[in-house]
Amino acid sequence: MGDAPTPEREYILIALPFPLDEKMEGILSEIKKKHSQVKIDYRFITFFQGWRMGDSSIPEEIWGKATILVTFQILPPNLDIIKNLKLIHLGSAGANHLAESPIWKDTDIPITNSSGVHGPQIAEWVIMQILTNSHKEKLMVEWQKQHKWGPHTEVGFVRDSVGQRLGVLGYGAIGRQTARICKAMGMDVIAYTASPRKTPESKKDSGYIVPGTGDEDGLIPSEWYSGLDKPSLHNFLKQDIDVLLISVPLTEQTKHMLGAEEFAILGKTNAFIVNIARGAVLVQDDLIKALKKTPEEGGLRGAALDVTDPEPLPEDNELWDLKNVAVTPHVSGLGTMYANRTFEILERNLTHIEKGEKLINEVDKKKGY
Amino acid sequence: MGDAPTPEREYILIALPFPLDEKMEGILSEIKKKHSQVKIDYRFITFFQGWRMGDSSIPEEIWGKATILVTFQILPPNLDIIKNLKLIHLGSAGANHLAESPIWKDTDIPITNSSGVHGPQIAEWVIMQILTNSHKEKLMVEWQKQHKWGPHTEVGFVRDSVGQRLGVLGYGAIGRQTARICKAMGMDVIAYTASPRKTPESKKDSGYIVPGTGDEDGLIPSEWYSGLDKPSLHNFLKQDIDVLLISVPLTEQTKHMLGAEEFAILGKTNAFIVNIARGAVLVQDDLIKALKKTPEEGGLRGAALDVTDPEPLPEDNELWDLKNVAVTPHVSGLGTMYANRTFEILERNLTHIEKGEKLINEVDKKKGY
Repeated sequence: MGDAPTPEREYILIALPFPLDEKMEGILSEIKKKHSQVKIDYRFITFFQGWRMGDSSIPEEIWGKATILVTFQILPPNLDIIKNLKLIHLGSAGANHLAESPIWKDTDIPITNSSGVHGPQIAEWVIMQILTNSHKEKLMVEWQKQHKWGPHTEVGFVRDSVGQRLGVLGYGAIGRQTARICKAMGMDVIAYTASPRKTPESKKDSGYIVPGTGDEDGLIPSEWYSGLDKPSLHNFLKQDIDVLLISVPLTEQTKHMLGAEEFAILGKTNAFIVNIARGAVLVQDDLIKALKKTPEEGGLRGAALDVTDPEPLPEDNELWDLKNVAVTPHVSGLGTMYANRTFEILERNLTHIEKGEKLINEVDKKKGY
Repeated sequence: MGDAPTPEREYILIALPFPLDEKMEGILSEIKKKHSQVKIDYRFITFFQGWRMGDSSIPEEIWGKATILVTFQILPPNLDIIKNLKLIHLGSAGANHLAESPIWKDTDIPITNSSGVHGPQIAEWVIMQILTNSHKEKLMVEWQKQHKWGPHTEVGFVRDSVGQRLGVLGYGAIGRQTARICKAMGMDVIAYTASPRKTPESKKDSGYIVPGTGDEDGLIPSEWYSGLDKPSLHNFLKQDIDVLLISVPLTEQTKHMLGAEEFAILGKTNAFIVNIARGAVLVQDDLIKALKKTPEEGGLRGAALDVTDPEPLPEDNELWDLKNVAVTPHVSGLGTMYANRTFEILERNLTHIEKGEKLINEVDKKKGY
C-alpha cells in the first residue's frame, strides 16, 4: 500500500472465448479507469473442452510478463516461464477441469473462479423448469401449434408451489438464488452442505453475489443438513422433498452421490429433480430407471437436466424421449451479463491485491472448488 | 352476536362445476367442524360461459331456504323467491360477468368474490412465461425433440432478469405475488392503480391473501403510479418497462385501455406483455401489429396471453402462429388448490357474519370488482 503506483504494475493476460467487441472493450475500459496501473493484453481463444498448456497465438515473452491470467482453458505452456504470474482468474464457476494440470498440482499460485456469476441466470433456468413441468407448458405449446383452445378438463392437475419443499443439495450461489425465488413463491427451503453450518458466520456466502440476489446470510433455509456420509445424505433426502436441486461442485466426493438408493428415497415423495451441476454427480442409468417408474412404483415426477454424462448426450440416449424429462445442452449459464460479472470479480480482486486484502472467490485446491 | 347458535342458522347452497369428490367433502367437513350451525346443500353444475337464472336441478323451495349461495354462474331464478339470501360468494375472481344480472342491479345482497385465490397460481404462470421467453425454452424443446445438443453459438442472447423492470397494471393479488417473485429475481417493480395510494393504509391488500405470498403492505413497488386518464397511464408506460403485466379487472374504464398508442410507448423499450386479465382490456388487432414489428420499428419483444378477445380464440387468428407469442386457453388459474382457497374465503366470512364483522372480498358494484 505504501508504494506509489507504477505504470503497468499488473500485466493482465486475458485468453477467453469472447470476442473483443464493443461491449468487452467497455468492460475493460471500466477496469482501466479504476486501476490505471494495469496493462491488459486481450487474446481471443476459440472455446474447447478441457484445458491446454499454452497457445500458439501467445508468444513465450508474454507468458513471462503476465502477472494475472484470465482464462477458461488455456494455461501457461510450462511452469518455468511464468516468472511473474501471481493470480489466475477463471471465467468458469467450476475449477475441477484443471485439477490435473501442473499449475494446480505443482504451484501455489492462487486461482479465483467465477462462482456467483451464474447465480441469477441459472436460478432462472431452474425456476423455469420447475414451472414448465408443473404448469404443463409442453402441452400448452403443442395446443398452440395446433391452434387448439384446449378444454380445461384436458389440462389435468396443476399444483402451484405454495407449501411445497425445495431441497438444495449444495447451497452455493445458484442454490441460494433459487432458494430466494422459491421462497417468494411460497415454498419451504431446506439446504444440504458438506460441512455443518451451525453458526451465523458459517452460513454466510463469502463469495461474489450479484447485487439484489442470493441469500448472503443464509437465512432462507428452514433447516440445514450436512455431511459427507450416506446416512446424512439419506436423512436429508427423506425430508419430504418435492423438488431437489443438485448444485454441488463435481469432486471425488460428489461423483455419483445420487444413485438407485437415493432416487428410491426421493421417489417416495414423487420428487422432481433438477441438475445444473455436472452429469456425473448422479448415476444417469439409475436416474432413467427411476424416471420410468409410475408414482405408485416410487418413481420420480420428472427431471430437468442441463448437464449429462457424457456431454454432448449421445443421440440414442433414452433421456431425450422421456416425457417427464427436459434436456438442454449445458446452456443454463449462458447470459449476456456473464462477462460483466466475471470481470467484476477480477476488478474487486485487483483492489484487494492493491490493498493487501484477502481475495474473493479463491479456489480451495484441497476441496477442489 | 348475542343470539345463541341455532341449528342450521345458515343454509349454504353450493352450485359449482366441481364434482363432490373426496377432496371436496374434506373441505366441506372442515367448514362444518368450524361452523356447526351450517347446512350445506351441494349441487354439481356443468361449467358454461356467462350466467343463467336458476337451474332445473335446484327446486324452488331450496332457493327459498338458502341464506348463502356459492356459485360461478348460476343465479336465483327470480328475485321474489330468495327470501333468506344474504350473501353470494363467487368462485371466480372477476365479477363483471354478472353486472347485467337482476341480482346485481336490483338488490343489495352482498357479493363476495374469490379474488386472491389465484394469486400464486397465476403469478407462477406469469413467471413461467417471462422465463420461457427470455431463456428460449421453445428452441430448447425443439432441440430435445431432435435429440440435438445444440451449440452455444445458436442459443443467442439470453438476458436474465436482474435489473429489469416489471410494470404491474392493476396491483391486486396476482400483481402483488408476481411482484414478490420478480423482486426475488432481482427486478425492479413499479405499480399502477386506478386510485392513488399515497398512504401506508391505502397501499395495503385488504382482501384474501394465500399465506406466505403477495405483498400485503404494498412495500415492493419502488414507485406507484395512478389515474384513470390517458396522460397518467402514458406516464406510467414511459418508465422504461421491460415486462408489463396486465392484471386489471375488466370494467368500462379498463376496456381497450391499451391500444396502438400504448403499444408504441412500450415498444420503445421492446417490452414483453403478459395478459392474464381479460382479452378486451387491450385492442387485440393493435397488439398483433405491434408484435409483428422489429425492435428497430418499435415493436414489442413478445406477448404471453392466457386471455383473448374473443374466447376461444378463433382458429384462424394470427396470434397462434406468431413466434414471439404464447397463447394458452385461459388456464393460468386452474389449480388443485383452487377450491380449498375459495372455501377458505367463505369460511372466514362465516366467522365475520357470526361476529358481525366486515366481510372480506366484497365486490364493489359501482367499481364492478
